[in-house]
Amino acid sequence: MAPESVLEYLAGNEDRFIEELFAYARIPGISAQSDHAPDMRRSAEWLAARCEQAGLVAEIRKTGGNPVVFAKTPKPDPKKPTFLVYGHYDVQPPEPLELWESPPFEPRRAGRNVYARGISDNKGQHLAHINAVEAWLKTGNELPCNVKFLIEGEEEVGSKALYDYLPKHAKELACKALVVSDTEIPGMKHPALCYSLRGMAPSEILLEGPDRDLHSGLFGGAVDNPAMVLCQMLAQLRDKRGKITIPGFYDDVVKLSAYERKQMAKVPFDEKKFRKSVGVAALFGEAGYTPDEQRAARPTFEINGLTSGYQGEGGKTIVPSWASAKITMRLVPDQDPDKIIAMVKKHLKAVCPPTVKLTVTAGQGGGPYMVDPTGPLAQACMRAAKLGFGHECLLARGGGSIPIIAAFKKYLNADTFMLGLALPDDNAHSPNEKFSLDAYMAGMKMAAHLWPELAGVA
Amino acid sequence: MAPESVLEYLAGNEDRFIEELFAYARIPGISAQSDHAPDMRRSAEWLAARCEQAGLVAEIRKTGGNPVVFAKTPKPDPKKPTFLVYGHYDVQPPEPLELWESPPFEPRRAGRNVYARGISDNKGQHLAHINAVEAWLKTGNELPCNVKFLIEGEEEVGSKALYDYLPKHAKELACKALVVSDTEIPGMKHPALCYSLRGMAPSEILLEGPDRDLHSGLFGGAVDNPAMVLCQMLAQLRDKRGKITIPGFYDDVVKLSAYERKQMAKVPFDEKKFRKSVGVAALFGEAGYTPDEQRAARPTFEINGLTSGYQGEGGKTIVPSWASAKITMRLVPDQDPDKIIAMVKKHLKAVCPPTVKLTVTAGQGGGPYMVDPTGPLAQACMRAAKLGFGHECLLARGGGSIPIIAAFKKYLNADTFMLGLALPDDNAHSPNEKFSLDAYMAGMKMAAHLWPELAGVA
Repeated sequence: MAPESVLEYLAGNEDRFIEELFAYARIPGISAQSDHAPDMRRSAEWLAARCEQAGLVAEIRKTGGNPVVFAKTPKPDPKKPTFLVYGHYDVQPPEPLELWESPPFEPRRAGRNVYARGISDNKGQHLAHINAVEAWLKTGNELPCNVKFLIEGEEEVGSKALYDYLPKHAKELACKALVVSDTEIPGMKHPALCYSLRGMAPSEILLEGPDRDLHSGLFGGAVDNPAMVLCQMLAQLRDKRGKITIPGFYDDVVKLSAYERKQMAKVPFDEKKFRKSVGVAALFGEAGYTPDEQRAARPTFEINGLTSGYQGEGGKTIVPSWASAKITMRLVPDQDPDKIIAMVKKHLKAVCPPTVKLTVTAGQGGGPYMVDPTGPLAQACMRAAKLGFGHECLLARGGGSIPIIAAFKKYLNADTFMLGLALPDDNAHSPNEKFSLDAYMAGMKMAAHLWPELAGVA
Repeated sequence: MAPESVLEYLAGNEDRFIEELFAYARIPGISAQSDHAPDMRRSAEWLAARCEQAGLVAEIRKTGGNPVVFAKTPKPDPKKPTFLVYGHYDVQPPEPLELWESPPFEPRRAGRNVYARGISDNKGQHLAHINAVEAWLKTGNELPCNVKFLIEGEEEVGSKALYDYLPKHAKELACKALVVSDTEIPGMKHPALCYSLRGMAPSEILLEGPDRDLHSGLFGGAVDNPAMVLCQMLAQLRDKRGKITIPGFYDDVVKLSAYERKQMAKVPFDEKKFRKSVGVAALFGEAGYTPDEQRAARPTFEINGLTSGYQGEGGKTIVPSWASAKITMRLVPDQDPDKIIAMVKKHLKAVCPPTVKLTVTAGQGGGPYMVDPTGPLAQACMRAAKLGFGHECLLARGGGSIPIIAAFKKYLNADTFMLGLALPDDNAHSPNEKFSLDAYMAGMKMAAHLWPELAGVA
């Protein structure tokens, strides 16, 4: 339990915390787009200044890519346990812009929601932790543990620089466990500890046919169509229920246990409401699994983008010169991204006809993650979440990927506990992303309670 | 045979004819792009002025879309037969612009070639006819027939306005036969009369899934991926050899006769050279047909463009909200575009899963065309081509489509004879489209000889 004065401080500073959230959300830190490089730097600078203002000792650290912000509570006590909060200041591209109801980097408040790109994923969530530590420090209460913050700028593009940074700074980052708020909870009445995440294996598939777009009348029939070949190659990788048909793809998948299925079933799910929330007439998914299992505990093959030929107004009667697809596979324990990518490459090569040239470019992937949800640290996290939200904390698996978490285990030998503040309608990665100010405030309370709960069992 | 003075006039005015070709090619008359509407008008105005300058009586006629240019030789003689030359002043979109070696609307001469969008398809080809009639008129020679010109501005987008215009102006356009130079010949030593064209049935297929792009981690596995569904639906419409698998698709296809196959085999074809000319490692096509048969006498299903999800730099881990494909089917006698489109719509509807919403928007199609290549007018055309090019004229089928030709037969009850001036490396519809000045000059000579040859047997 956090002292009353800490909680009062949080409540008393709500307006300022919201203003700071707005300021942070105005910085378009889009890591996927190279013309936003200056905004990555601005994001890190804003964040480091905010940490200093909160009473932390903060530094911007160079990496091979976008910088990381490293901050810690002052005068660390070696007798106390140390915990590390991880987050990311970079955001997804906001496109398609025309679907936003207000500009993605001009935060708009409507009631208890604030709309902006990156505000839920992940700015609001790690700000809540910084605010909570500020409350401990500024009220003169002694934190029962040392707290470190590591906020990076490449999570949305695969955390490449951090993978290099981690082993070199393992000593400085050493901790008993990590806490990450970057996952979804079912609702304000259902906080949840996420004990598993899917991994990710991204690739870009390029098929090159004729050396230019050809007149489909003069050449069509004797020269193959790369767009059609792409469709035919991709079509056979997944069946109509979502089962992936690449040989060996499921070899390393760990079966869901009866206990897990029982716990996951406690998470409320309203199919009609879910369908409506995404605007589809019918759900879909592998036979024998619930929707929550399908989207969190089963691997997937997704096409994220298709590009070929003429995309403008009207038509153009061509055999396109090339066709490409951006794809990502979500992986579950114990699938290995490198092994999966190699499998996909081999399979694509085997099914590619001689009429086109195939190039598969693998992006930065990350392994899936799982931690024992019944251990003492997990239970401490669940108590803190209950205290913050005022409701029992559920157990859940996350469908998303935070690939760096597997690397934390590897290099820091520490487990990661995921206490998300995102709600199901937050539109992460979609137009009109939003963050709930109620989740922001409850998250701060949870974060304030977290340190005594964790320190008590560490 | 045209009088010697006509041929001398053509040779003597070569420089001016080339300058005029340049001026015409500078006008970006892209009918598919609505922001080029003023350029359509400019194209028509330039052309009408050019016809007047050539001694013709020319008018710009309003239609429901882009205007048509109608011109005729002065003082028509009712005792003489009348022929009509058809062409189009509109051009294909020039995209992708980055593949052009010089700007598409700044004609660039290199030796006997001129590079510009629309210069071969179709500006240079109908200008050759105008120049040839000018030579007759300006040298005081009496044309043995009345000649009319109908040059439209929507051929590249389906000739919609002309379909309405034709029946209303059938009397004015009345003619014994039509001549069109808008097809390809195997080379300068192989002029060819094209006696058949493929028809065309274009459509746009849109699949709508979730109402916005979704986070592929949070939703993937339980919400279907419209890009994958599009691939799966398109993939099954064509087999790997190019055979279309839509039930009933080949029902109305007229079998190639032994005579036709024999004539088509006379057209020289060098597979290695052909492969190199388009930059592919392997050809492709329906079993049992030669490449020339595959691309001129067999129907095809082509994807002209694919669009879905994120297409920018880097990646974006989404389930895209929608996916679309632009497609065209090339048809052969006696396939009917409306019947084919209905067949495709029905088939797509049948194979579309309930997880996405399907919309098929049919574009303006056109029927295939065939004329008897052994008749007297066909033979007259072949004599004129031999006189113009100095080589025997072959018989060929064209793989492209000039859909309005079927409408000429219907509304004017007149056959169309196609005497193309485009060479196989002209890059029609592709970047770096070019036109051969040798073909331009030989085409003028052919066009000059055409009227006495046709009038002699009409």
